[in-house]
Amino acid sequence: MPVSLIVLAAGMGTRMNSDLPKVLHKLAAAPMLHHALQAGASLGLDKVVVVTGHEAEAVARAARSYDETIETVVQEPQLGTAHAVAQAAPLLSDAPGDAIVLYGDTPFIRPETLEAMLAARSDHAVVVLGFHAADPGRYGRLLTEGDRLLAIREFKDASDEERRITICNSGVICAEAKVLFALVSEVGNQNASGEYYLTDIVELARARGLSAGVVICEEAETMGINTRQQLAEAEFAFQSRARAEALENGVTLTAPETVFFALDTVIGRDAIIGPNVLFGPGVTIESGAEIKGFCHLEGCHVSRGADVGPFARLRPGAELAEDVHVGNFVEIKNAILDEGVKVGHLSYIGDADVGEFTNIGAGTVTCNYDGVMKHRTRIGKRAFIGSDTMLVAPVSVGDGALTASGSVITEDVPAEAVALARAKQVNKAGLATKLFERLRAIKAAKGKA
Amino acid sequence: MPVSLIVLAAGMGTRMNSDLPKVLHKLAAAPMLHHALQAGASLGLDKVVVVTGHEAEAVARAARSYDETIETVVQEPQLGTAHAVAQAAPLLSDAPGDAIVLYGDTPFIRPETLEAMLAARSDHAVVVLGFHAADPGRYGRLLTEGDRLLAIREFKDASDEERRITICNSGVICAEAKVLFALVSEVGNQNASGEYYLTDIVELARARGLSAGVVICEEAETMGINTRQQLAEAEFAFQSRARAEALENGVTLTAPETVFFALDTVIGRDAIIGPNVLFGPGVTIESGAEIKGFCHLEGCHVSRGADVGPFARLRPGAELAEDVHVGNFVEIKNAILDEGVKVGHLSYIGDADVGEFTNIGAGTVTCNYDGVMKHRTRIGKRAFIGSDTMLVAPVSVGDGALTASGSVITEDVPAEAVALARAKQVNKAGLATKLFERLRAIKAAKGKA
Amino acid sequence: MPVSLIVLAAGMGTRMNSDLPKVLHKLAAAPMLHHALQAGASLGLDKVVVVTGHEAEAVARAARSYDETIETVVQEPQLGTAHAVAQAAPLLSDAPGDAIVLYGDTPFIRPETLEAMLAARSDHAVVVLGFHAADPGRYGRLLTEGDRLLAIREFKDASDEERRITICNSGVICAEAKVLFALVSEVGNQNASGEYYLTDIVELARARGLSAGVVICEEAETMGINTRQQLAEAEFAFQSRARAEALENGVTLTAPETVFFALDTVIGRDAIIGPNVLFGPGVTIESGAEIKGFCHLEGCHVSRGADVGPFARLRPGAELAEDVHVGNFVEIKNAILDEGVKVGHLSYIGDADVGEFTNIGAGTVTCNYDGVMKHRTRIGKRAFIGSDTMLVAPVSVGDGALTASGSVITEDVPAEAVALARAKQVNKAGLATKLFERLRAIKAAKGKA
Repeated sequence: MPVSLIVLAAGMGTRMNSDLPKVLHKLAAAPMLHHALQAGASLGLDKVVVVTGHEAEAVARAARSYDETIETVVQEPQLGTAHAVAQAAPLLSDAPGDAIVLYGDTPFIRPETLEAMLAARSDHAVVVLGFHAADPGRYGRLLTEGDRLLAIREFKDASDEERRITICNSGVICAEAKVLFALVSEVGNQNASGEYYLTDIVELARARGLSAGVVICEEAETMGINTRQQLAEAEFAFQSRARAEALENGVTLTAPETVFFALDTVIGRDAIIGPNVLFGPGVTIESGAEIKGFCHLEGCHVSRGADVGPFARLRPGAELAEDVHVGNFVEIKNAILDEGVKVGHLSYIGDADVGEFTNIGAGTVTCNYDGVMKHRTRIGKRAFIGSDTMLVAPVSVGDGALTASGSVITEDVPAEAVALARAKQVNKAGLATKLFERLRAIKAAKGKA
Repeated sequence: MPVSLIVLAAGMGTRMNSDLPKVLHKLAAAPMLHHALQAGASLGLDKVVVVTGHEAEAVARAARSYDETIETVVQEPQLGTAHAVAQAAPLLSDAPGDAIVLYGDTPFIRPETLEAMLAARSDHAVVVLGFHAADPGRYGRLLTEGDRLLAIREFKDASDEERRITICNSGVICAEAKVLFALVSEVGNQNASGEYYLTDIVELARARGLSAGVVICEEAETMGINTRQQLAEAEFAFQSRARAEALENGVTLTAPETVFFALDTVIGRDAIIGPNVLFGPGVTIESGAEIKGFCHLEGCHVSRGADVGPFARLRPGAELAEDVHVGNFVEIKNAILDEGVKVGHLSYIGDADVGEFTNIGAGTVTCNYDGVMKHRTRIGKRAFIGSDTMLVAPVSVGDGALTASGSVITEDVPAEAVALARAKQVNKAGLATKLFERLRAIKAAKGKA
Repeated sequence: MPVSLIVLAAGMGTRMNSDLPKVLHKLAAAPMLHHALQAGASLGLDKVVVVTGHEAEAVARAARSYDETIETVVQEPQLGTAHAVAQAAPLLSDAPGDAIVLYGDTPFIRPETLEAMLAARSDHAVVVLGFHAADPGRYGRLLTEGDRLLAIREFKDASDEERRITICNSGVICAEAKVLFALVSEVGNQNASGEYYLTDIVELARARGLSAGVVICEEAETMGINTRQQLAEAEFAFQSRARAEALENGVTLTAPETVFFALDTVIGRDAIIGPNVLFGPGVTIESGAEIKGFCHLEGCHVSRGADVGPFARLRPGAELAEDVHVGNFVEIKNAILDEGVKVGHLSYIGDADVGEFTNIGAGTVTCNYDGVMKHRTRIGKRAFIGSDTMLVAPVSVGDGALTASGSVITEDVPAEAVALARAKQVNKAGLATKLFERLRAIKAAKGKA
């Protein structure tokens, strides 16, 4: 059955103390919003609508950066969660099947939980996600009988007795789309806040004779982010889980507590990840690859048998084939390194293709920018790039060619050729001693002056 | 009313197991002594006297490095806290107003606490700072009635009943300066240790009919450092507080637990600080600047819109204007980078001025040292420094000029000129193949030999 | 009295989810197996036998890499611990004195504990190591009377009453070698698992009228590693202890929780270790040396007064004499740096000898690899290597010589000479402006096309 997703992401998040809207703050190297979108992704969604408000354009861009088919609607002004959902009606009220409402600031709902809610729809017209709160505090309470839900009571509208209930409302709701929008259109704002609460649809449904149900998840899944402190705690929670999962999956993590994963990091069994490794978005590490300490990776692929670091940076578009070696103080960007390539030290390889078993000496730079445009460098197989070679792109070096150390290569180098661009060495006897004597005399004179 | 500060810093700190005197061990990138001085700084102090002893000269230098108007006296030998305070008499016994006694190894007393003590002086001649100890152990006990203090009892001189008291003595004392020194001069050493205890002035004051009072602070403020383990715990406590405060102030910290602040670090709202960033002394980061992971900063300023790292080091005197980009494996020292300057990769820019929107290629070095003296490099606006340019200082590059990749620039480059210093490239056909064959033959021959 | 050691290391460790046999997974930068070997090392062992099985050859290599005199036997198939010990009989059954049985996956047994077991041998023929388990779970139980051991009961064979005992079996056993093997040869496999249990020798000994005894150690010592999560916990436990010990020994650790030690790291008093420092195997740091933040060290020696980092990598064979300075983005490998040498920035010094007080400029590379072989670079005393010097090895630079910035040095430089290998600078007036105009025009034309 088709399922649509509505993600509420209109709030500013005043308590974040930030000009950036709350749902764009990053968690695991992705905007918080992406986590909610990710939760729905495995359900095979029919349609996704993100309800924006504050900084609507920026939030919409972030939504489309996750999946360009995502649609957005603007809620302006923001009059409550039911009002927010109602904004999606023009896009979804005729949608077939069910609709799920998620929140852009609630990143940890699991796909399995959403599947349980969809399954519960066979018994109930409206399904609400609840959790047993260790400290219920000011959460809305769920009034239940077995798996049936009688009502949701916002804390400020709840009686003392209702406040003693510990089953709380996560806010996540699932219903047939057309039912959802019909109910939402009936919600009023006669309450302490004067807001339109999505939660009111439960009583409206029951008034229509429709059944409401509850699904219970872990409290940790429902963690909402309101402050930077909570965001830091969420990051810690995400990383702790990701580290434990990686260990479980057979990844070697020397010091798991120092490794930071992104939402989409993929690492193979028996890959070795040293201490202090940071994964940005879009990284895959194959089985048996090794990432040494102090590495910074994003948007890259590291194949089996390759080793990277310490102190290496792989930027988007870095593709390391099997047995590639990238050593210390090396940056690779938008470059394909074929099998067995070695870049051991102090180099920048950007916008480049490097053929198999080529060795790149220390201090090599692909000069990819001429001040106006970027250009590509192509290096063949089994070439030897001498230390401190400047490859002024666009330029190519043929298979088996050699560039002499310290050369600036501005013209293509044919296969098997040696390219040299350097002056002959001259030794001037005794000159160093004279030079230093003169410099010391100048310094002494300055000291006196 | 004028206030003077006396900081006791004469002890060696034997339990630190170090040749360095205890108060010079660093906490938050500053000598421990500076923390006590900082606590008093916001009170608008009239005079500050540090009582030195072990390694007196080094401690005095550290005191003056905080504020050169600080005076020091030497306590030699060290006969107790009252004896230590007495050494300051020649400098302070005629000082108008109050005097506060702090300790160089007690870094966390808050300015607000000292203000509360000064306020309590309107009711009492002598004010002592106490705290409720979770585990009173061997601390001195405060014998009190309401906010009145009857006596301070050192643990070893206390009765069993007195030892059951949980209000403990922090050692911090405030009194009118002339009263303080008069009382201190009467303190005797008839006790188990044969030392002159500052704490005895409370009973002496009461014997004179003067009132003594107590102010209570959090136990955490009174944490004293005696071992390296305690110093590590204090560092952790400082960092935890600094991280929480930064979050509260709207700083984005991806992984707060991996960021280390200095005592004087200043970071603006919505600045982004990645994981594993170390702040040494003297760093200010403006709102909206970004410091990526693995950066090491000290004595520098980073303006709005600038981004730094990963793997960057900013050393003292690095001034980054708005929208400057400093990338990976880049070191900036004593250099002013104007708006929009880019230094992306593998460069050392030291003792330099760089004009707005200039682009500095990978592998650029300002050769600022000639073996005897340091010299300055000046680069104009919108210049383009090719990769691997050596700028042999003193030297200047004019506005809009370009240096060719791989050039060693020893003479000034006029505005809009191109400077080249390199040999022409020559490609020698087939030579690489021959060379490698010869090398392999040599290797094989060696293997047989 | 001579003592032999038997280390059982035949298991695959299925729960590690790894192709690497469990005992080769690293703990504190050493294979787990080395920790057990290290525990025995201080006993002055006569003979060491490692019992291998899964990946026998790799485990045997790792054993010999600890000490090449270690012997190995293969247990194939693996029929239990008594069967494993029996495999060592051909090598040890005639060995004089005692034999101790340890486990390759139990890394934390202390030498003092083994000494206590050897001492207890004066009272008992067989001595078993036990511990009070906080949660006895499925551990084997020790049935004792005072320090006498009546029997060891595997959990699955234990009665309910026996399961209430909290003294558990670590598996570590000590006995006279010839007694041990005689007993082991009598062990049967009539139990729930059909395995030959080493633990059964206790009842066999008692049946012969021999006395069995128990020695109790801390539970933490007996921690066995079965999963990657447990390995991570063991790493954390090791590091926590190593950090506390370093502080105790007078090492300055700014942020101990970010420093990772190897099994064999040695650091002197008042050495300063900044945050985020990783020690691989074989590092010694002398008193008063400083390692700044973000350093990666292995197989190196840093002498008194030397300072390293931040962002430095010392690889095997790096020997830094007193007062050497190694700065940021510098890699040192298999190189001896004499007193006072400075390598401040962005350099690779590999396979080299550098004489005292020589200064090496930024961007210097020892080009030690010609594509086939590695060669050595020799630099004399008080030389000055200009920035971006390429030293094409084999090559030497004499005492007091200078290489001009940007030079490629392919021939030896005599003492006191200046070596230059660079083209003369030419400034082409106005050319930069024309070039950029042309490039912008090309870009604009491309944009239209």
